[in-house]
Amino acid sequence: MRNLKMTIQYDGGRYKGWQKQKEGESTIQWKIENVLKRMTGEEIQVIGCGRTDAGVHAENYIANFHTNSELSVETMMDYLYEFLPEDIVVKSIKDTTERFHARYNAKGKTYVYRINNGEVRNVFNRKYTYHTSVKLNLDAMREGAKYLVGTHDFQSFTSQKPKTKSTERHIKYININKTGDMIEIEVDGNGFLWNMVRIIVGTLLEVGMGHMKPSDVGRILEEKKRSESGPIAQAKGLCLKEVHY
Amino acid sequence: MRNLKMTIQYDGGRYKGWQKQKEGESTIQWKIENVLKRMTGEEIQVIGCGRTDAGVHAENYIANFHTNSELSVETMMDYLYEFLPEDIVVKSIKDTTERFHARYNAKGKTYVYRINNGEVRNVFNRKYTYHTSVKLNLDAMREGAKYLVGTHDFQSFTSQKPKTKSTERHIKYININKTGDMIEIEVDGNGFLWNMVRIIVGTLLEVGMGHMKPSDVGRILEEKKRSESGPIAQAKGLCLKEVHY
Repeated sequence: MRNLKMTIQYDGGRYKGWQKQKEGESTIQWKIENVLKRMTGEEIQVIGCGRTDAGVHAENYIANFHTNSELSVETMMDYLYEFLPEDIVVKSIKDTTERFHARYNAKGKTYVYRINNGEVRNVFNRKYTYHTSVKLNLDAMREGAKYLVGTHDFQSFTSQKPKTKSTERHIKYININKTGDMIEIEVDGNGFLWNMVRIIVGTLLEVGMGHMKPSDVGRILEEKKRSESGPIAQAKGLCLKEVHY
Repeated sequence: MRNLKMTIQYDGGRYKGWQKQKEGESTIQWKIENVLKRMTGEEIQVIGCGRTDAGVHAENYIANFHTNSELSVETMMDYLYEFLPEDIVVKSIKDTTERFHARYNAKGKTYVYRINNGEVRNVFNRKYTYHTSVKLNLDAMREGAKYLVGTHDFQSFTSQKPKTKSTERHIKYININKTGDMIEIEVDGNGFLWNMVRIIVGTLLEVGMGHMKPSDVGRILEEKKRSESGPIAQAKGLCLKEVHY
């Protein structure tokens, strides 16, 4: 049986996230499975590298699926390009080893959160960027972000209920860069809890706006309580950039 | 009476262009006039720098309007920001001289046409970019473009019926640049006929794909017949970048 690895780009704006929760919900996984079923005549199950929240985007989402189909990858690419909606693109498909599993084998992920910090919103990136005209103090945000780098219990930075599963994760780096009015917060880690990147960004925004001190981030981490951290940042600003294997 | 000059950014995707043709049509002019009428209580008429086709975008569209309102420009900006839809942004408003007229005083315009020449479409710029995976020969396109620079009769490059109005225009430059998979064709001229930029781009695409020779562009110009030039390029790739006064 073949095992095929896909790299997928999607605009998550009109989807309930990657993974279906209940039958009939519009998710990226469901859209792709439907096309693959039509293409192969098999009951294909697509294994994703992880869940993404409703409204979150992906530049290079990784998924795999098993099939007995003998179609060439070129034919599969053409078929998917033709039948997927215009907000989902399969950028590549490759035959891979039988044991490859997009979720279990993922060693880490890089997310990027985009903020337009200009006076007014920009109509051309409005669907992929969070806009605030409140001038953000990037130095304070960078100082606050330092507390999060390393291995920590991120209970304060997830919507996941306490004590259901381990909330320890490792963050390798958080880079905050600005080009013109556009701020990019890049977060790289070995794995992320539910809503974790968006709550980290929401908390750093509080620091950037002066509502919290950089050192509050360290305190919040130690408190291990969701109620201490900042609000969850809007989904549309978040994009899964890379998955590491 | 005050005369106010506005710089406007819009995503033209869901509009019938800048200017209303008949009552009730959804145009950018109509959207802005409605908000200004509510704001001032006056019958405001907004004078645009020119028509843009349905689906064409603008980075810096210029318009002006006269009013007796004593509201500050800051208040006007806030009002427009609040009540315009998210695909139209008034970037600035300034009091200007009584005689300023956005259309009559315009000395020239710069348009940019964006082409994604990658293997697959990109979901994030799909609404502002024309996609073709046929590898374009940029050198041939640049050579063809040279024939159009200068003062010419552009009858072959407009949807305007022959002999209704003058079809002579001056093109200052056509620059074709590529960054990654993204090609930008920048066209600067003293004025443009109906559909002129899109027919120029459509013709240059024929050259880039090898369906026409660069020298054909010169021949087409001399023929003064719309039937000789290439097809009209998709509206969504075109954006009005600057208006010169």
